Amino acid sequence: MTAFDLRLPRLSKCDNATASLGALIGVGLGPGDPELVTVKAARLIGEARVVAYFAKRGRASNARAIAERYFATNREELLLAYPVTTELPFDTPEYVEAMSLFYEDSARRIADILSRGRDVTLLCEGDALLYGSFMHIFVRLEQRFRVEICAGVSGMSGCFAAARLPMAWGDDVLTVLPATLSEDALTERLAATDAAVVLKLGGNFAKLRRALTRAGMLDRAVYVERGSMAGEKIMPLRDKQGDEAPYFAMALAPGRGRRP
Amino acid sequence: MTAFDLRLPRLSKCDNATASLGALIGVGLGPGDPELVTVKAARLIGEARVVAYFAKRGRASNARAIAERYFATNREELLLAYPVTTELPFDTPEYVEAMSLFYEDSARRIADILSRGRDVTLLCEGDALLYGSFMHIFVRLEQRFRVEICAGVSGMSGCFAAARLPMAWGDDVLTVLPATLSEDALTERLAATDAAVVLKLGGNFAKLRRALTRAGMLDRAVYVERGSMAGEKIMPLRDKQGDEAPYFAMALAPGRGRRP
Repeated sequence: MTAFDLRLPRLSKCDNATASLGALIGVGLGPGDPELVTVKAARLIGEARVVAYFAKRGRASNARAIAERYFATNREELLLAYPVTTELPFDTPEYVEAMSLFYEDSARRIADILSRGRDVTLLCEGDALLYGSFMHIFVRLEQRFRVEICAGVSGMSGCFAAARLPMAWGDDVLTVLPATLSEDALTERLAATDAAVVLKLGGNFAKLRRALTRAGMLDRAVYVERGSMAGEKIMPLRDKQGDEAPYFAMALAPGRGRRP
Repeated sequence: MTAFDLRLPRLSKCDNATASLGALIGVGLGPGDPELVTVKAARLIGEARVVAYFAKRGRASNARAIAERYFATNREELLLAYPVTTELPFDTPEYVEAMSLFYEDSARRIADILSRGRDVTLLCEGDALLYGSFMHIFVRLEQRFRVEICAGVSGMSGCFAAARLPMAWGDDVLTVLPATLSEDALTERLAATDAAVVLKLGGNFAKLRRALTRAGMLDRAVYVERGSMAGEKIMPLRDKQGDEAPYFAMALAPGRGRRP
């Protein structure tokens, strides 16, 4: 059964069945600058009585930092602390099990609150439906509770503006790729697209640089670190030193399509 | 010379050279719901003394309708009316010439105002740097004037939320395709990606449906018309009747990647 097959029948079922239950409200926060939160998201956050957010264990939550200025004084907060982030490779059974238990537990904690008739506003950096942790909670709860989702500025859109880079023109094909792919797969996909956004650089940076070179895209690639945030770094990718980058850094290769 | 090579040297040059000139401020407005404008965009629009926007000739401007609630009472407005939109095929010399003259003329009208030391805030639906008309003005003026760009929620992000569709997970590859490609090219690219967003449906809808079918993606494709706006229509794509769709309708095929 596809994601869509699973989804539509529930929408109406839940609208009927859950009048006494709280709603899960997923709010995309944009790329990092608190002013890039939408007017709607600011309103939803201000109305929230229970605000939930993810954080790396032992660290302050980035999502909370973006949204805090919009918090109501009488809100309660629910911290969902990842057991691991990038310490374990994502394809190991240990990582999958730890994250699966974490999402199950987080969904149960949120469901407990929803079951008492209270709404939970779950914050999500970037756009909630594009590589977002919100999605893992959404698929676990959408059958039982009403869900509202507020679109946000994606992290990549924040990087386009930070780099002042027109990314896709006319009939350009734009491909969004994780740098976790093999060097050959990256090269092949870069060579086949007009414009590219590469995510999750981290320890994959050297491999990506080789793939961009092989695909003939190195000279128009731009490296963006902390786009729209304090400590933002933007440079031609070929000038970036070293073989490592932060996990959330991005590479952008703009299209060159139709420009009347 | 690449887009990036053209860009960086100008930034500092302009900062020095243009202190007495106005700035071009490009503002992405999001997918259509005025509440999906960012807090920053709302502020910039409210501060604007000259607001410029595109419209189809003889029609009300969609961009203006989204932004109007944020206008200052003492703003001036500059309407940039497209000579053609979809009446001519985009690959005819007539279309290219008409649009080229239009962008040249629009850039000149904006430059006249900037040259008198006044800022111009140019509105753009969606994200200004993703298939946006703003880009055509930007590349014509960025060498002579200071430019600021405010990221917006892209039209596609608005459609993800409207359809409640988690689009890309974990290491999914996401491809953004114009439906103007040939049926074979569409089929090949759809078959090679995990998740897809197809833009510019219009008269290409029947071709896209065949391509989705050939690529084995029809059953998880969702059709979204006027996402986040009045008259929004969302349905499984296989249920969409007829061979035509509005030009700005989208097809979404979500990824099914890593889900711990």
